Amino acid sequence: MKVRKAVVTAAGRRQRGIPLQTIIDRDGVEKPVLRALLDEVLTGPIEEVGLVVAPSDEATYQELAGEHRERVRILVQTEARGYGDAIACARDFTAGEPFFHCVSDHLFVSTLAPGGLTKQLVELAASEDCAVSAVQATPERFLTNFGAVGGQRLSGRDGLYRIQSVLEKPTPTEAEQHLVVPGLRAGHYLCFFGMHVLPPSVMEILSSNGQNFAEASAELARRGTYLAAELPARRYDLGLRYGLLTAQMAVALAGRDREDVLARLVELLAVTRG
Amino acid sequence: MKVRKAVVTAAGRRQRGIPLQTIIDRDGVEKPVLRALLDEVLTGPIEEVGLVVAPSDEATYQELAGEHRERVRILVQTEARGYGDAIACARDFTAGEPFFHCVSDHLFVSTLAPGGLTKQLVELAASEDCAVSAVQATPERFLTNFGAVGGQRLSGRDGLYRIQSVLEKPTPTEAEQHLVVPGLRAGHYLCFFGMHVLPPSVMEILSSNGQNFAEASAELARRGTYLAAELPARRYDLGLRYGLLTAQMAVALAGRDREDVLARLVELLAVTRG
Repeated sequence: MKVRKAVVTAAGRRQRGIPLQTIIDRDGVEKPVLRALLDEVLTGPIEEVGLVVAPSDEATYQELAGEHRERVRILVQTEARGYGDAIACARDFTAGEPFFHCVSDHLFVSTLAPGGLTKQLVELAASEDCAVSAVQATPERFLTNFGAVGGQRLSGRDGLYRIQSVLEKPTPTEAEQHLVVPGLRAGHYLCFFGMHVLPPSVMEILSSNGQNFAEASAELARRGTYLAAELPARRYDLGLRYGLLTAQMAVALAGRDREDVLARLVELLAVTRG
Repeated sequence: MKVRKAVVTAAGRRQRGIPLQTIIDRDGVEKPVLRALLDEVLTGPIEEVGLVVAPSDEATYQELAGEHRERVRILVQTEARGYGDAIACARDFTAGEPFFHCVSDHLFVSTLAPGGLTKQLVELAASEDCAVSAVQATPERFLTNFGAVGGQRLSGRDGLYRIQSVLEKPTPTEAEQHLVVPGLRAGHYLCFFGMHVLPPSVMEILSSNGQNFAEASAELARRGTYLAAELPARRYDLGLRYGLLTAQMAVALAGRDREDVLARLVELLAVTRG
C-alpha cells in the first residue's frame, strides 16, 4: 500500500479556530498550529495534502499554509455534516488511492524529527499492507473525548494490535463490555490518536453509512485486517478545556525551553493564590 | 476630567494576531483575547471604544467584537507607522475629549470584577483632574519590553507617583540615570502597564512630534501634572515569548480552575523530561 496523499480535516465548528492558534514548537519556533501540523505531514513520504475547511475559511487557511502552499489543496465542506463527511469531501482528491489522514485540532508531541510519526505510520501500512490507525492508551475518564478500539495485541509485536471493534466516545460500561484489550494498564483503553492510514474503500463506506467515522472504522475492521499502532508520542486535543495550555506546556517542557518555562511556573506559583 | 471614550490599539504588526488568540478567563469562560479586553473596557464608565486595526483586519475584528459590536467603532490605520500613530488615528473619534487608552496585546489579571481596573483609573483621572498612566514595578531585566517612567511618590498616597520623565525601552544605564524612583524595590522600575487616561492634547502632541508615544508622554509630563498609578493587578505582555502561556497560566492559577491546572502540571512534569 503506497501512500502519497494526506487528508487533513479542519472544517468542524468546534475546531475551526484551533489551527489558527499560535504554538511554540520544541525548537522554540513560534507558528500557527496548522503550520506545525503541515510540517509534520509534509516532511516525508506525503506529497500533497487535501485540507478540508468550512466555506468561509478558504482564504485564511490558504494563507496559513505558508511555505507549504504549493502542496496544499483547499477542499470545502459545503455543509456542516460532521467529521466523517469532511473526510468524504476529499473523495475526488484521493482518487481511489489509500491516504494518510489526521485531524487538525490535535497537537502531536514526540521526540522524533518532524515527519517521523507520519513516516512510521505510512511505512507500517505499507509493510503490513492494510489500514492502520495510531492509538494512545488513555485512562477511562477521557473516553468521552475520543473514538476507542477493541482488539488483540499481535504476538511478538510491541504496541501493535488487530482492531476488532470501534466505538465513538463510549461510556465506561460500553468500553468495559467491548473494548478491553488484554495487556493494557488497568482502566486504560486504546483511543484514536488522530492519525490514520486509510484504504480507498473508506470513502465508499463513509458515503453509504451516513458519514460517521467510527462506524466506517468498525466496518473496515469487519472487512479485513485493520491495525492499531502505539506511536512514540502523545497527542493533545486542543479542543478540550485548557487543551492549548496543556499542549504548549507539554511541548515546552519536552523541548529546549524547559528551564525557562519551569522558572516562569515557579514564579507564577509564588504570585498567585487559589 | 470626564472620560466616556476608549481607544484600543490592535494595528501593530507584532500584535495583529494576538487579540484573536483564545484565553480562558478566571471564571472558566473561553473567549478571544479581544473579547476579554472589551469586557474589561466596556463594563463601567466607558461608553464607546475606537478600535484601531490594520486595513486587512477590519472584518475579523468587527466579528470578534461580538456582543460589544454596537459600542465598538473600527478605525483603520492605513499605513504601519507605529504605536503613536495608531493612537492618533482615533483623533476624530475622540473629538477633543480626554480618553481611556489600552493596548490589545496585554492581558490584565486582577481580583477585581471586569471593568474594575478601567473604573479605578478613570475615577483617579477625574478626581485628580489630570492624565494618569497605570504602571507596574518591573525588574530591570524586563526594561527592554516596556516604556518606563521616572518620578516621585506622592506623599501619603499609596502607589501613586508624579511622572517626571518617560523613556521607551530604556537600557539599564539610562534607567539608573533617569528613572530611579525612591521607595521602589532595588532593581525595579515603574514600567507602563498598558492602560492610560490621556488628555485631548496628546493627539496634537502625537501629530507634531513624529508619533512616538513615549515622547508624547514625556511632553505631557512637562506640560502639567501627569500621574502614574499602581493598580491591584498584573499585566502580561502576550507578544513576548511564551507570553500567552504565561498569561493563561497566571489567570488559571488565580481562578476557579487552579486545582485542575495544578494537577495537569504535575502530570506533565511526570511524563516530560528535559
